Amino acid sequence: MVQTLSQEERRAHLPSLKEAGWAEVEGRDAIKRVFTFADFNEAFGFMARVALYADKADHHPEWFNVYSRVEVTLSTHDCQGLSMRDVQFAQFCNKLGQHA
Amino acid sequence: MVQTLSQEERRAHLPSLKEAGWAEVEGRDAIKRVFTFADFNEAFGFMARVALYADKADHHPEWFNVYSRVEVTLSTHDCQGLSMRDVQFAQFCNKLGQHA
Repeated sequence: MVQTLSQEERRAHLPSLKEAGWAEVEGRDAIKRVFTFADFNEAFGFMARVALYADKADHHPEWFNVYSRVEVTLSTHDCQGLSMRDVQFAQFCNKLGQHA
Repeated sequence: MVQTLSQEERRAHLPSLKEAGWAEVEGRDAIKRVFTFADFNEAFGFMARVALYADKADHHPEWFNVYSRVEVTLSTHDCQGLSMRDVQFAQFCNKLGQHA
């Protein structure tokens, strides 16, 4: 069973995610970050890599794309809020998106 | 220069797109369709095929995905409305999505 983040886990992980550009979503226990790339090809390359991760981890983003822009929202359906799965997912996205 | 659809083109193409599940977007000259698949793997497979088409055609969707659901919105930036590029793009999506 997936658990939502404890207060301690929030203090441990959310500040560095916020520093990387993630923001808490109003009215939901979720985080969101906008990634911007050079063009659609590069944006979809990012999405393809994230999709392979998502399929393997069985953890899926809510995401919106138009041209070079990708908005990623993370939350865990099973516990209706942020879990360590979202933290790990966000860290993976950061690693890919850091040169964008 | 890309032109928005003429009245004649609208009469020729929009009815069959609507029959296939596309709807006009309120307040914009755009169309939208929701595609639903068995799971994320299948949904992203659809997105990958559409992305290859988009990159080749240099015409890009606005799209949102969560798990097995993909919402595709089409409009042409250059003419601020629907053009034949959107009609062709929608027809391509229909061809891929018809077995979903």
